[in-house]
Amino acid sequence: MRLDELARRIGGEVAGDPSIEITRVVPPEEAGPGTIVVLSDPRQIPAAEAARAAVILSQDSPPTSSPGIRVRNARVAFALALRALMLQKAPPPGVHPTGILGERVHLGAGVSVGPYAVIADDVTLGDRVQVHAHAVIEDHVQIGPDCVLHPHVAIRHGCTLGARVVLQTGTVIGSDGFGYAQDGERRHIPIPQVGTVALADDVEIGANSAVDRATLGVTRIGRGSKLDNFIHIAHNVEVGEDVAMAAACFVAGSTTIGNRVLIGGSVAIGDHIKIGDDAVVLGDSAIPTDIPPGAVVAGHPAWPRMAQRRAEAAFQRLPEVVQQLRKLEQRVRQLEGG
Amino acid sequence: MRLDELARRIGGEVAGDPSIEITRVVPPEEAGPGTIVVLSDPRQIPAAEAARAAVILSQDSPPTSSPGIRVRNARVAFALALRALMLQKAPPPGVHPTGILGERVHLGAGVSVGPYAVIADDVTLGDRVQVHAHAVIEDHVQIGPDCVLHPHVAIRHGCTLGARVVLQTGTVIGSDGFGYAQDGERRHIPIPQVGTVALADDVEIGANSAVDRATLGVTRIGRGSKLDNFIHIAHNVEVGEDVAMAAACFVAGSTTIGNRVLIGGSVAIGDHIKIGDDAVVLGDSAIPTDIPPGAVVAGHPAWPRMAQRRAEAAFQRLPEVVQQLRKLEQRVRQLEGG
Amino acid sequence: MRLDELARRIGGEVAGDPSIEITRVVPPEEAGPGTIVVLSDPRQIPAAEAARAAVILSQDSPPTSSPGIRVRNARVAFALALRALMLQKAPPPGVHPTGILGERVHLGAGVSVGPYAVIADDVTLGDRVQVHAHAVIEDHVQIGPDCVLHPHVAIRHGCTLGARVVLQTGTVIGSDGFGYAQDGERRHIPIPQVGTVALADDVEIGANSAVDRATLGVTRIGRGSKLDNFIHIAHNVEVGEDVAMAAACFVAGSTTIGNRVLIGGSVAIGDHIKIGDDAVVLGDSAIPTDIPPGAVVAGHPAWPRMAQRRAEAAFQRLPEVVQQLRKLEQRVRQLEGG
Repeated sequence: MRLDELARRIGGEVAGDPSIEITRVVPPEEAGPGTIVVLSDPRQIPAAEAARAAVILSQDSPPTSSPGIRVRNARVAFALALRALMLQKAPPPGVHPTGILGERVHLGAGVSVGPYAVIADDVTLGDRVQVHAHAVIEDHVQIGPDCVLHPHVAIRHGCTLGARVVLQTGTVIGSDGFGYAQDGERRHIPIPQVGTVALADDVEIGANSAVDRATLGVTRIGRGSKLDNFIHIAHNVEVGEDVAMAAACFVAGSTTIGNRVLIGGSVAIGDHIKIGDDAVVLGDSAIPTDIPPGAVVAGHPAWPRMAQRRAEAAFQRLPEVVQQLRKLEQRVRQLEGG
Repeated sequence: MRLDELARRIGGEVAGDPSIEITRVVPPEEAGPGTIVVLSDPRQIPAAEAARAAVILSQDSPPTSSPGIRVRNARVAFALALRALMLQKAPPPGVHPTGILGERVHLGAGVSVGPYAVIADDVTLGDRVQVHAHAVIEDHVQIGPDCVLHPHVAIRHGCTLGARVVLQTGTVIGSDGFGYAQDGERRHIPIPQVGTVALADDVEIGANSAVDRATLGVTRIGRGSKLDNFIHIAHNVEVGEDVAMAAACFVAGSTTIGNRVLIGGSVAIGDHIKIGDDAVVLGDSAIPTDIPPGAVVAGHPAWPRMAQRRAEAAFQRLPEVVQQLRKLEQRVRQLEGG
Repeated sequence: MRLDELARRIGGEVAGDPSIEITRVVPPEEAGPGTIVVLSDPRQIPAAEAARAAVILSQDSPPTSSPGIRVRNARVAFALALRALMLQKAPPPGVHPTGILGERVHLGAGVSVGPYAVIADDVTLGDRVQVHAHAVIEDHVQIGPDCVLHPHVAIRHGCTLGARVVLQTGTVIGSDGFGYAQDGERRHIPIPQVGTVALADDVEIGANSAVDRATLGVTRIGRGSKLDNFIHIAHNVEVGEDVAMAAACFVAGSTTIGNRVLIGGSVAIGDHIKIGDDAVVLGDSAIPTDIPPGAVVAGHPAWPRMAQRRAEAAFQRLPEVVQQLRKLEQRVRQLEGG
């Protein structure tokens, strides 16, 4: 692709020869002729110049002798450039001879159903949906256009997916929630989980995650939210829009997470919690109580990050504090006795 | 279903017109004619009356004008009412044409084997077992009546399941335990895992969990125990009866968990630990040492809950404590100098 | 197998009758004629003698009346003896009639492809590779000899496995990394993940784990490393050789783990961290900063183990410390007033 065409696609401005051909986006250590590198730091400029690579860099970077594209947001440009130069890997449309379709299955234009995929009755797949090998879709599921279900994904009965939802391998939507009533002998009587799950447009979920169906009602994940691998979303949870949740976040039942919340990896969130819009939960935290909008929290249990950092520092001096206290007590005793 | 028939099934007493028809159990916000709501709090009564819904409520609740059912345990009644009114979703009995059965497979009455399910040799399935799409059952597995294996479940060779065991999508029973011997060059030599797994009657396990086979002997989960999603049970663990374990509990090898133990979400339990009967482990905890019967523990590492709460509070005042100590020392120095 | 043949295979020295037949390795509680038990503690000798079992024990153990094998490392001998006496469970070579092979698939000698396994185009499988039921291998994957892919494993496009790699049920290699760029409206724009994963020789990974492909470049796991169930390896992570990682370790992007590092269960490791060779991370820890070679660390966040243990002890005395401080202050006030 010509540099000027790439610039047009990623919304940047050409600097230098617009006619050079770019074939790949590469990391700085693989820079060379025909490649383009995204520079996050102006100190990387000389190496890129020496390697005769093209560059993507921020508008306010110093001038370079390399041909390049100047952009407002280098990380967004990186995403768009990769997408523009990616080899198309979409599977061919059509249903593989071993794909099984139930009754009343409506397939949009260009849908691809891979080997051994199983689609039950009363299912609708929007245009260009990709159902990869061994995915299972149960009864009464609705899937919007351009969704991608990777191998071994399962969508259990009655769940709905908006447009452009991407589910990585092994992820389950609509597993039964963990609901039991203890009887007089302290045995656990299962509460049937008869609700569903709704994933809104542009939701993406990583590998081997699970979103449980609601007991009654709907477990929801809002538009544009991105969840990583090993995410547990329990029954009746509601996740807002544009949320990002790194790997191994475990969210217990009926919790509500606001819009644009950012959650680091390995976070345990209790049940019936409310996390306000724009809150940030750092990785390795536990949330047993509500978090107000915009708060930045960390720790077990999580509290404001700066306070947590100070208390952690004090914690590491604790044995010393205990010893100081003991010495001070001796001195006071001497003063009292004197 | 008539109200009196529902009352009979859930073991409660009718109050009001026994002949009204109930079609669905709904949450309070969807209450309306023909529905029944379970009231956990008497303050919800007026809204249910206004909505002209039937109600399930505890025996000692104040009287209502709504037709209803009075019960001893409203949560158990909720479970039973949902079960009574659920649409039957059981798949039709029979083996799907693409289901593969090995040699010497014994199928009980009414067994259902879904598309692409694979059952190896010398397997016994009890009456009414449901093997859903893409489930895999290896050699020499015994499965009791009324078990349900959801899509993508795998039961590895030699494992046994009692009656009414339910396994959610993606869960593995009998994966190899994590056992290695370090040789003189500090390489890890695999120790073959030749034991099995036994799940007793009424065990239920959530999605994407794994129960490892024993090195020698049997990894066991006792009658009536309920495990949520993302549960790791390592080799040679023994879980007692009527245990409940919320999502993301990771139990290391050879640990023993007593009867009726309750474990919250995101709990790490070390190897060779004993947790006594009726203990309670709160969520977000780590268990590196034995827990006595009946104890209620929390924290990293876990210790008695009340003490943990006090220490957490003190932890959050730590920087202040350090400063007070410093000030006090100055005052003592002045006294000493005076 | 005769005792002397077993001794030859596990590299030990026979003591007593070399001609007795051994059929099984058993735990001490199942010891009996025809079995062999591995004794880790000389106090177990009398029971083994009484049971008339053969024994494997360390060279420097006291003499016994039981026939046995004396070895340098009893745990390694346990691994080797189990392997020698295991019933061969390898599936028969050949492609099951329902196995699907794409174009340009090269199968080595003795390869076994199970029911409903799906292998896409341009894939190479080395000699004796076992692809079990329902495993999925995408385009352009290279797999070395003697690898075992258990049921429901998925290897996504372009990934490579060395020799003798073992992947337990439900594990995914090459899922897309979690990479997004936030645009001006704080929406998350997906960054295509166009790298791959390389697992070196003798890597073994437990059930329901996931190793993400690199954004650009390669996510790597080094020779001989063993990972347990529920392991998350994010994009561009590099794990060294002979590493052991217990269940539920979650490693964020671009982190580097050195050779021979040992990591306990339930450990969260941040992104862009370096963990030096031979470091040890105890279970239930979080690693937000680099760890030097050889360090032994624990805690949230992790710091040197001994210091952590002292601080934990002090933490549990914290409420008492606060009270002592308060009392001491009163005494100082009295002194000052006096």
